Amino acid sequence: MSSLTLAIDAMGGDRGPAIVVAALTRALQSFPETHFLVFGDSRVLLPLFQAEKIQNHPRVSLEHTDEVIEMDDKPGQSLRTKPKASMRLAIEAVAEGRAQACVSCGNTGALMAIAYVRLKTIPGVIRPALVAQIPTEKGCPGFLLDLGANPRCDADTLFQFGVMGSVLSKEVAGIAQPKVALLNIGVEDIKGTDAVRQAGQQLANCTDINYIGFIEGNDLFSGKADVVICDGFTGNIALKSCEGMAQLVYKKLSSSLKGHWFSRLMAWFLLKRFKKAWQWLNPDQYDGASLLGLRGVVMKSHGNASATAFYHAIKQAHAESSLQVPERIHDRVESVLLKSQ
Amino acid sequence: MSSLTLAIDAMGGDRGPAIVVAALTRALQSFPETHFLVFGDSRVLLPLFQAEKIQNHPRVSLEHTDEVIEMDDKPGQSLRTKPKASMRLAIEAVAEGRAQACVSCGNTGALMAIAYVRLKTIPGVIRPALVAQIPTEKGCPGFLLDLGANPRCDADTLFQFGVMGSVLSKEVAGIAQPKVALLNIGVEDIKGTDAVRQAGQQLANCTDINYIGFIEGNDLFSGKADVVICDGFTGNIALKSCEGMAQLVYKKLSSSLKGHWFSRLMAWFLLKRFKKAWQWLNPDQYDGASLLGLRGVVMKSHGNASATAFYHAIKQAHAESSLQVPERIHDRVESVLLKSQ
Repeated sequence: MSSLTLAIDAMGGDRGPAIVVAALTRALQSFPETHFLVFGDSRVLLPLFQAEKIQNHPRVSLEHTDEVIEMDDKPGQSLRTKPKASMRLAIEAVAEGRAQACVSCGNTGALMAIAYVRLKTIPGVIRPALVAQIPTEKGCPGFLLDLGANPRCDADTLFQFGVMGSVLSKEVAGIAQPKVALLNIGVEDIKGTDAVRQAGQQLANCTDINYIGFIEGNDLFSGKADVVICDGFTGNIALKSCEGMAQLVYKKLSSSLKGHWFSRLMAWFLLKRFKKAWQWLNPDQYDGASLLGLRGVVMKSHGNASATAFYHAIKQAHAESSLQVPERIHDRVESVLLKSQ
Repeated sequence: MSSLTLAIDAMGGDRGPAIVVAALTRALQSFPETHFLVFGDSRVLLPLFQAEKIQNHPRVSLEHTDEVIEMDDKPGQSLRTKPKASMRLAIEAVAEGRAQACVSCGNTGALMAIAYVRLKTIPGVIRPALVAQIPTEKGCPGFLLDLGANPRCDADTLFQFGVMGSVLSKEVAGIAQPKVALLNIGVEDIKGTDAVRQAGQQLANCTDINYIGFIEGNDLFSGKADVVICDGFTGNIALKSCEGMAQLVYKKLSSSLKGHWFSRLMAWFLLKRFKKAWQWLNPDQYDGASLLGLRGVVMKSHGNASATAFYHAIKQAHAESSLQVPERIHDRVESVLLKSQ
């Protein structure tokens, strides 16, 4: 696909539109063929465009709206009462075919609700899933889903997450036969909830999926599985707890080095080396949780996203739409559903 | 309490009885008033006792049994078919009042089932919870429960975990008014499952508990809460995922330092500093997950526990029984239940 258009919700997130505009400026350089439809308040955005010198950029169209979905708005209410919200308009642009993907760092619940109602799921898909890349020991990124779009899931939904995650890993990470696992509290067949055990049976019976069984939390980053499936409550808490742990380890290691006169002397060298390792684990570069299973690409950037993080979310959206991930999921879900009928 | 007796299941775990005997030898030195009843196969244990020179120790009694619960035995089956298993006998010793606590690194499900049936819960307690200490940024340990004894929990059960965790934090960590939080996928009232939201209401209404609301995964180690409550599926996966993440960060930081000639030269120094920080995070020193809510102390050491880890589990069991944690929980549960009637 030579020319893509991405719709950007410039108003969501905790840090305001400045990080979105900074990320957009960087994306304009990285993707010289891509157009951007930017939705938001022109009184706020134009000065930021001017500061970044992109106010007259031929590949940027600003579409003004002063309606914004706040971070604490209720999803259903946002859907009903804010038809002109920047997030809503960005999703509508995808629904109308004016854009191939949309990116937002706004309210996750509202994004999910609006995308679900306006874009709809791919035929046969029960629920969209929020999926993100995670670092693994082997270097190749893994995928974890769901991350909170569906707090509790039945077996059929978990099974479909396996099918969709497998397509994503194949298309985006280029893994021919992605290893799919269910996250559980033990590896034995008897462990876990009914939904997890039943989904395990369904995945094991599906010849289209390279299902490897249950894995426990300590294998999340080992690279044992390329795609890890769980309900949204579990996935959200697992991933956020790990972010907390990574921060804690980093702080502890840094402060233990600062304590000694010799390491203080060596700080410039050590911090440089630390940063290199940290960069590899930096949550910013894994930013961009995709709502998988919709008829279009919807990318959620972290509510607290930095410009770097939002740029990575744009990059992810660009990759998924170039690779036509929704179309590939459509094909795979159709073929798996046909076989299981 | 001047003289305690601890019952030790010497046969469970992945690494065999050698680590248990090594931990016991260390515990004999640390707790010069404490007696140990050791359950297991004397043909295996006696040579290990001899190697550690504790075969005639006045504070060690070996009670022979050749029945063992294997790591993959089903809980219910172990309960019915292995009345003489080392784990069973260790729990019976507590039930009979011959010991104040038991420690095992065997099959968690079996330990839970046998303890539940033989020791029974404190009157009013619905379900025992598996609880462990976690490191926090502030230095003071936090407590996380449940860790897998109850994969799914209703609101009443989660509420009781709050009450019991609060007692544990007060007695063991010495915190006068422990801050109790529910682990959730957002901090707003509307977030999470029905059970979590209802438990939040119950905790907020309970004047006996210093309830601070929902926290997300990234605050698990921040020290924002002293006691963090969740169902066993979530807690198990959160904690194990974090172990996986800590290992990954450590490996990454170490290998990035090894790459440079200067850091290779400095390796002896850096590794020493790293180990100091690592020690603080080392899962071994947080070993010992307690089954809270029973009429006696039951301590679960990690299935893959090292001698150091098992020693820490013994230390925890010693602390909880000296501090009479089950009696304190009994008092608190009684008073909270009376008030809510």
